[in-house]
Amino acid sequence: MSQIDHYLNENKEIVESLLKQVIDEKNTPKQLHDSIYYSLLAGGKRLRPILMFASYDAFKQNDRHKTYETASALEMIHSYSLIHDDLPAMDDDDYRRGKLTNHKKYDEATAILAGDALLTESFSLIANDPLLSSDEKVYLIKELSQAAGSAGMVGGQILDMEGENQSLSVTQLEKIHELKTGKLIEFAVIAGAYLAQGEAMNEKALRNYAYYLGLIFQVQDDILDVIGDPEKLCKPVGSDEESDKSTYPNLLGLEGAIKHKEKYIALAEEALVEAGAKNSYLMDLMHHFANRDH
Amino acid sequence: MSQIDHYLNENKEIVESLLKQVIDEKNTPKQLHDSIYYSLLAGGKRLRPILMFASYDAFKQNDRHKTYETASALEMIHSYSLIHDDLPAMDDDDYRRGKLTNHKKYDEATAILAGDALLTESFSLIANDPLLSSDEKVYLIKELSQAAGSAGMVGGQILDMEGENQSLSVTQLEKIHELKTGKLIEFAVIAGAYLAQGEAMNEKALRNYAYYLGLIFQVQDDILDVIGDPEKLCKPVGSDEESDKSTYPNLLGLEGAIKHKEKYIALAEEALVEAGAKNSYLMDLMHHFANRDH
Repeated sequence: MSQIDHYLNENKEIVESLLKQVIDEKNTPKQLHDSIYYSLLAGGKRLRPILMFASYDAFKQNDRHKTYETASALEMIHSYSLIHDDLPAMDDDDYRRGKLTNHKKYDEATAILAGDALLTESFSLIANDPLLSSDEKVYLIKELSQAAGSAGMVGGQILDMEGENQSLSVTQLEKIHELKTGKLIEFAVIAGAYLAQGEAMNEKALRNYAYYLGLIFQVQDDILDVIGDPEKLCKPVGSDEESDKSTYPNLLGLEGAIKHKEKYIALAEEALVEAGAKNSYLMDLMHHFANRDH
Repeated sequence: MSQIDHYLNENKEIVESLLKQVIDEKNTPKQLHDSIYYSLLAGGKRLRPILMFASYDAFKQNDRHKTYETASALEMIHSYSLIHDDLPAMDDDDYRRGKLTNHKKYDEATAILAGDALLTESFSLIANDPLLSSDEKVYLIKELSQAAGSAGMVGGQILDMEGENQSLSVTQLEKIHELKTGKLIEFAVIAGAYLAQGEAMNEKALRNYAYYLGLIFQVQDDILDVIGDPEKLCKPVGSDEESDKSTYPNLLGLEGAIKHKEKYIALAEEALVEAGAKNSYLMDLMHHFANRDH
């Protein structure tokens, strides 16, 4: 196993063991607890918390436990967004990662409330972290609420819905990606570096890195839908082209999309050098996700 | 106009002018901004923020601006909960206070996202309040997320749904009220007193007062459904009895419900005396809501 695969596996296990402890079994009604637990432990890459760890690891070698509650909170927000996205009124998906979606396993009302609870509890988790100072908590809550709210993830979701039946430019497409998925990725990078370095971090360079990383992830998603192996992806390919959806290959052609990705890889590398994190897992993760086959 | 009516009107205007400024027009996609604004400014008693003001006023006579952002955040959480409660998968209501509900005015997806945004932005508002210290912000965010989350409002909502087709005991009914509506009322009282008095507040007595106030409000709601004037209430009465819903009059009889309320009024008064707030608007508000006719 390569070093980066080892890093991903090891940290995925850490994230999942943290998430198992996150929801207070005593004080949560059973149905709500079960449905939260079901979605939170339903697998996934755990990209956001692992990215937060990598950002911390890039700048500090000890006290890593300081990142754990916030990383869990971040994954809880991601999980709530998937539960709500899957609802009949939104994407209307019955399955996610081969398992029934929350509202199919339970019911729609429970799924709405499980999402609401996850979002609320994520802020509670940070506010109650015994390892952080009040200043650190306030910084993280400001950043996380900004990233997840109307000018971030939820705003991107609305723009995505509005753009569904229109032909978008690359600029419009990237604005949606930046808000809908990019802002939480940016939070992961900034939160990890902040807990390691405080105000000394090179915030601008780190935000640039996160911006390009988010888009690289999306370009590769779109590329895999054209040339990926359905068995490795666990889903059919070619659906984007058929549906005439706004994707990088549909807008730029396959070659154009690959060139676009390569430009962003170079810019992400440059930003990492500037941030003082050239030799870190942030670099390896970026290349790993740029070249992944699933 | 009586003194308490004057207090209510004056503070309602303050709340509404605060809420008008709350959502950042520049950075929120138009459709999302409009639907948030629509529900947030759709009227209502503004009970929670006014209660927070009254709790502050009971213990401190200056610097009241310290309560304003948190009071707005509290009303935003209440507003999000109404938007999600009205959804087809939940109570399926087309009208609220004589106006179309959010998902009827806009659409279901927008209503889900407007609720999500309001919840997220409420924590952002507290975290960004320039008048509060980091310790104060963390205290308020802990309390608010606890009150709104799985062991509070959302938990109560799940229990309410589960109890819908069962006959409940008074104890079970009051547990649902305590979580679903009581916890935010408790937050209002605690948050106001905390900003006025800090750790010096009599937390236990204040939580008791809030507990009884929340239940008094509910008993009176149920009583008005039996003996209220439909014109003053702007809604038909008698629907609870027909539907065989678990309400105080259905469980205790009308006389029993009135006696129950009177017992709680005495207990709320006692708690206020203990908290050192005998002569305050907290007392007047309690009596006002206990005897309201709409």
